[in-house]
Amino acid sequence: MEKRNQTVAVVGAGDFIGSAIAEKFASEGFTVFAGRRDGTKLAALADRVTAGGGRLEARSLDARVEDSINAFLQEAEAHAPLAGCIFNVGANVNFPVVETTERVFRKVWEMACYGGFLTGREAARLMLPRKEGFIFFTGATASLRGGVGYAAFSSAKFGLRAVAQSMARELGPHHIHVAHLIIDSGVDTAWVRQRIADREGAEALEKLDPGRLMRPAAVAEAYWSLFQQPEDAWSFEHEIRPFAERW
Amino acid sequence: MEKRNQTVAVVGAGDFIGSAIAEKFASEGFTVFAGRRDGTKLAALADRVTAGGGRLEARSLDARVEDSINAFLQEAEAHAPLAGCIFNVGANVNFPVVETTERVFRKVWEMACYGGFLTGREAARLMLPRKEGFIFFTGATASLRGGVGYAAFSSAKFGLRAVAQSMARELGPHHIHVAHLIIDSGVDTAWVRQRIADREGAEALEKLDPGRLMRPAAVAEAYWSLFQQPEDAWSFEHEIRPFAERW
Amino acid sequence: MEKRNQTVAVVGAGDFIGSAIAEKFASEGFTVFAGRRDGTKLAALADRVTAGGGRLEARSLDARVEDSINAFLQEAEAHAPLAGCIFNVGANVNFPVVETTERVFRKVWEMACYGGFLTGREAARLMLPRKEGFIFFTGATASLRGGVGYAAFSSAKFGLRAVAQSMARELGPHHIHVAHLIIDSGVDTAWVRQRIADREGAEALEKLDPGRLMRPAAVAEAYWSLFQQPEDAWSFEHEIRPFAERW
Amino acid sequence: MEKRNQTVAVVGAGDFIGSAIAEKFASEGFTVFAGRRDGTKLAALADRVTAGGGRLEARSLDARVEDSINAFLQEAEAHAPLAGCIFNVGANVNFPVVETTERVFRKVWEMACYGGFLTGREAARLMLPRKEGFIFFTGATASLRGGVGYAAFSSAKFGLRAVAQSMARELGPHHIHVAHLIIDSGVDTAWVRQRIADREGAEALEKLDPGRLMRPAAVAEAYWSLFQQPEDAWSFEHEIRPFAERW
Repeated sequence: MEKRNQTVAVVGAGDFIGSAIAEKFASEGFTVFAGRRDGTKLAALADRVTAGGGRLEARSLDARVEDSINAFLQEAEAHAPLAGCIFNVGANVNFPVVETTERVFRKVWEMACYGGFLTGREAARLMLPRKEGFIFFTGATASLRGGVGYAAFSSAKFGLRAVAQSMARELGPHHIHVAHLIIDSGVDTAWVRQRIADREGAEALEKLDPGRLMRPAAVAEAYWSLFQQPEDAWSFEHEIRPFAERW
Repeated sequence: MEKRNQTVAVVGAGDFIGSAIAEKFASEGFTVFAGRRDGTKLAALADRVTAGGGRLEARSLDARVEDSINAFLQEAEAHAPLAGCIFNVGANVNFPVVETTERVFRKVWEMACYGGFLTGREAARLMLPRKEGFIFFTGATASLRGGVGYAAFSSAKFGLRAVAQSMARELGPHHIHVAHLIIDSGVDTAWVRQRIADREGAEALEKLDPGRLMRPAAVAEAYWSLFQQPEDAWSFEHEIRPFAERW
Repeated sequence: MEKRNQTVAVVGAGDFIGSAIAEKFASEGFTVFAGRRDGTKLAALADRVTAGGGRLEARSLDARVEDSINAFLQEAEAHAPLAGCIFNVGANVNFPVVETTERVFRKVWEMACYGGFLTGREAARLMLPRKEGFIFFTGATASLRGGVGYAAFSSAKFGLRAVAQSMARELGPHHIHVAHLIIDSGVDTAWVRQRIADREGAEALEKLDPGRLMRPAAVAEAYWSLFQQPEDAWSFEHEIRPFAERW
Repeated sequence: MEKRNQTVAVVGAGDFIGSAIAEKFASEGFTVFAGRRDGTKLAALADRVTAGGGRLEARSLDARVEDSINAFLQEAEAHAPLAGCIFNVGANVNFPVVETTERVFRKVWEMACYGGFLTGREAARLMLPRKEGFIFFTGATASLRGGVGYAAFSSAKFGLRAVAQSMARELGPHHIHVAHLIIDSGVDTAWVRQRIADREGAEALEKLDPGRLMRPAAVAEAYWSLFQQPEDAWSFEHEIRPFAERW
């Protein structure tokens, strides 16, 4: 692995998608700054990356707090120039709209949208003087469709998509690549498997159709392919789904 | 004018669009409950409506405060069954994303999206037992497009659209008509005229092209036409623009 | 009924939707020119309209033939100025793409898209000198979504929507209102009822859920509401569906 | 270069985009079957590919003729299993709708939409028994937007997109990857350069902004990245534009 003197920040480095993204960029020579609410949960990830010859710095951060995001990205930048930033905080909930509390609605927005705005803005401030960098956001089916029970979640995801679009239009001419990855399926995480078990019974997990869930590593590959695009052929919106997904 | 024993609530009854909506529904016999931050500013509207033989109750309300919205709608319902509710709070701002403060981003969202969620949810709670009613939301070009300088505004408007979509899918089968009106142009308000004068000079106002701005009364007519739709042919999204608009 | 010295042309005046549109505009005082492949099938419609005090001219036409469309619209114009034109030719088929013959693909396109282009263009040529008129097109769910089995039909409907969009952008500034009505549900026609019986059994028709099918008259009302829009608040796309439709 | 015992067919192998795609897939070891109206114009391309150690078969074909497409793909398949097929026939024209002849409208559709249907269907028939392969279609800004003057072109491109969508939904579960690449900018071709010179003067070409035109090779890279996607993370729609494009 060729080391690069550049950092990549992953905001929302959960056990599955976020970790896979962090591992991918670390395996390509970047020093990855990985942040999540409780940074101590990143120990296993850090060990895997280090064992593979990569470099990863684990941090606790709260993406809903301006100073926390700011400090996290500033530290990455101080370590080595921030090449890119990926915002991957999730907040998937489902409630009938009349049972959605104002607390849930606000919290989901703060995590999935407001945190994305803060992250994108702070990253842009670091990248603009260099006229270089990428800022990627993780979207979902709910980014495009307000389905039954998704008033809170889709509202936040729609809002995040708007932030990403405005940023792409403003920052593209400054050579900063802003993209929005729409994962239009379930991803193979513990949480999704649990939800399938709850809804369809434990045996549904045993005979899970191939082509139903996306591997976290496939999400990481999608981000990597966005990173590799030449600047005369950038994608803003990038949708991915398994071959057998119904859409 | 035939009086109806029903109320219609207008949340965000500003001097132009909101007032025009209130006047229209009052002229059709509804008792209109009109709310805005400073309810005393509704005196002239109330006088016009009363002079025309209609009924309008002016109230101060803060759409960002659950109790305030709740009290407003409860009072309308206590007066006579709430036939419908129109959420018309605007919050149009334009800043480069890196100059958008967290305070602006949050405030625009609270006004244009969060307030819409609270309003829609509270209205739905009143209407669901009767399986009847309408809940309409005012959208804008920025509801569909995150343009340069609109990170805050379009994020809030995208978010509001998602709330409206989820509500439409959940409440339609209960005979509650949820719609999202997209005004895809400038509207002829003092604020828009000032913005034109600032950008293009005062003379631009004098020779304003016909077909550039939409009359507030035309917005009110659009809402009225949505109200009149038979329930086997409801629109969710309803876009309107002047004949000469470029889009 | 107040008579108007204006004609409205309905291209594709089938037994259900097209007839309902023709009746509505005739009932509002327009002389309606109604065209379909076999104009003799319009006798009952013509009788109903005449009995109601309206005026309707029935013609045979082939919307896929330039001269046929041209002659039809010229005759309407010669009778009285052509106020509007509604293109309502359907061609709904469903085949797996690999079983879709080139003949089916071409024929569906000629009926549903090419005929719409010819109709819209000829109508526009008549209306442009007067800078007045409306041109409406009937769309469907398949106008926005290429679903399984709909390669031919959705291709034609997508293509028709593009024609309508280009026309709306070109002709709007000339005060010609072009709109595209998306019927996002089944309509209560003999053909749809037969399809339900074939797929779900005859008993499914007896216990048909209210809110599943749209009445043809509701489509006609939707077109009428488009016609009534003031020119500072025109819709281009107008979607309608029954309250209980899943979408 | 590692040789593969597989063919890739490029339908519409013009001097710029189509040739770049052919070269890319040839450079990756596929035997490329390249077809265009006049196959003799492919001599230079064939020489370049051969000089680089690749394999390319040049053919004359008319994508609007079922037998021609069929023979072309059958021959590729007979040479070696058809791994993929890329439909890249363009037909960009711009006329006001009222000046668009029925001949132009039909011809543009036959080239850009009908030919795509034939190509996709014939490729699918070859790939379905193996449950493997890819079918890609070149789209444009006009695939999503019916702009002024684009009634014919956007109608065809919308129609092609619908074909691609239906195919993706039908064939995905059979492990055939169908994708639609939207090139949302001008591409650096002789034709586009001429159009710029015509509209903006010859000097506009000399000081062409970087970030205005996309290189044909970048389109080829985009197709290659689609080909490389793992089957649990396929894109259907894939949009690309230069960093400075306004959209």
